[in-house]
Amino acid sequence: MNANNTNHAIDTLIEKIIKTQNPTVVGLDPALDLVPDYLKQREFEKHGETLKGAAKAVYKFNKGLINALCNIVPAVKPQLAFYEALGVEGIKVFYKTVHYARERGMFVIADAKRGDIGSTAAAYADAFLGETKVGLSAYSAFPANMLTVNAYLGTDGVAPFVKACGDYGKGIFVLVKTSNPSSGELQDKLIDGVPVYELMGNMVTSWGAELIGNYGYSAVGAVVGATYPEQIAQLRAKFPQTFFLIPGYGAQGGTAADLAKAFDDKGRGGIVNSSRGIIAAYKKEGNEQDFAGAAYREAMRMKEDLLSVIGEIK
Amino acid sequence: MNANNTNHAIDTLIEKIIKTQNPTVVGLDPALDLVPDYLKQREFEKHGETLKGAAKAVYKFNKGLINALCNIVPAVKPQLAFYEALGVEGIKVFYKTVHYARERGMFVIADAKRGDIGSTAAAYADAFLGETKVGLSAYSAFPANMLTVNAYLGTDGVAPFVKACGDYGKGIFVLVKTSNPSSGELQDKLIDGVPVYELMGNMVTSWGAELIGNYGYSAVGAVVGATYPEQIAQLRAKFPQTFFLIPGYGAQGGTAADLAKAFDDKGRGGIVNSSRGIIAAYKKEGNEQDFAGAAYREAMRMKEDLLSVIGEIK
Repeated sequence: MNANNTNHAIDTLIEKIIKTQNPTVVGLDPALDLVPDYLKQREFEKHGETLKGAAKAVYKFNKGLINALCNIVPAVKPQLAFYEALGVEGIKVFYKTVHYARERGMFVIADAKRGDIGSTAAAYADAFLGETKVGLSAYSAFPANMLTVNAYLGTDGVAPFVKACGDYGKGIFVLVKTSNPSSGELQDKLIDGVPVYELMGNMVTSWGAELIGNYGYSAVGAVVGATYPEQIAQLRAKFPQTFFLIPGYGAQGGTAADLAKAFDDKGRGGIVNSSRGIIAAYKKEGNEQDFAGAAYREAMRMKEDLLSVIGEIK
Repeated sequence: MNANNTNHAIDTLIEKIIKTQNPTVVGLDPALDLVPDYLKQREFEKHGETLKGAAKAVYKFNKGLINALCNIVPAVKPQLAFYEALGVEGIKVFYKTVHYARERGMFVIADAKRGDIGSTAAAYADAFLGETKVGLSAYSAFPANMLTVNAYLGTDGVAPFVKACGDYGKGIFVLVKTSNPSSGELQDKLIDGVPVYELMGNMVTSWGAELIGNYGYSAVGAVVGATYPEQIAQLRAKFPQTFFLIPGYGAQGGTAADLAKAFDDKGRGGIVNSSRGIIAAYKKEGNEQDFAGAAYREAMRMKEDLLSVIGEIK
């Protein structure tokens, strides 16, 4: 137990998952072709076909999704790339989205996959998890609950994030076994008979050893793709204190059955991401004006799909 | 030769290095404690001790540095972390810094160490190297010349960046052997007798094979730390078409002698980064009002130091 376990990111996340009985995080990855045309047209009329117009449409989209989902889904995961592609206006929308989701009671995982040498990693940790000191004041630039981290640089590139987790009651998910087709090129390679992803899993365990919360999970979690069910099962068995962020369900090909062994016997231990499957569900229903309703229905369908495999989350 | 070699990022960079006879890139890493107090005080008086005040001071600092250095140093490398730590105002300053440096004729390497699965990597590539399409218009969100990339995810996470290099005459530097003390935890591990950094070097070579410029170097380069001279020498010999971005000189402990073997027999093949060594040189001279002059003098000292080992760059 850490000294700070009344404010432990993974405890908060698990409590939201239990309350909603839904181990889903919705990826707010607003590629512009996923944003309903009527929202874009409305903003383009005001601001032209500009990054500002696009960003305003994205924020309307995100707000509609958050309003529809905040009582049935515990968490959102905005993907920084799609906000950065819209420039400064996009980053403004990222900022506003983080705040709005938290106002509506949602847990926010900033999917930024940051990682750098020590002093630089500390600046990223300040930006997304901690505070930036300006004179005698301090500000949270983008106050997410958790952040995804790429640990190719090793311990000294991760330590500042881990420190911020302890200091501010935040958490990180370190890339271990990613969901994409070519993840194995490096991650599956064997080092003394052990795959790189397992070596990374070992490091994640040691980085998070001092930050175990009330449910037995560390604030230092791991990203493990739904598209690799055998590896998930193996990693779940081997790393009982590591909470998993699981991308790759749905559009990327992962199924609920693939995820059966990602969870512990209480149905805890992981949260499954769906991005376009939920946020662009309206495209299958054919009514873009009801994008929020379509997202709600798809989120409910996904919840039932996952629970059919996991059972009640206790 | 690529079809597009009249607009090849590494050719442009090499030409700027030859013209200035200086294989140095200045890291614009404006941690607030490196920004002269008088600049901060002036902005705090106008904007309070806020992120906006801090960001305005950073921009004044960057402008002063760029003005002082643009005729003697070929490139700057703003580190995203320090701009993100200042929130939306910081990103505005990053944007303005990229534009100002390019206006003054400098080559801009965005040090962001981005990397993600394919569709997301494409959005990052749009943001920093290519264009974001908005309706019938297209915008360059943060138009750097090159971007640092983390390739832990493998080929499909890198391919969109490589495509943008070809389409827009841009380049990337992929993390191979980083300069930090714990880089070896993963990067030095042996896979079938080959260290991970060399495996990564092989992948970099294959990703960049179609993007060789007029000087024989690919638009897909590698980050190799000055703090590991043996590995630099080994990688230079093994990967003659891979241009190196070399951090770790100065404050991190790398010396010019360590870099002797990072360059080819014409003195080409790498660019050495210094961040706080140059931008905070004024702290050693004791006159913060002359931060730009101090940076100029340190940049000239570093140039002489490097050339004493490399000789003339042809």
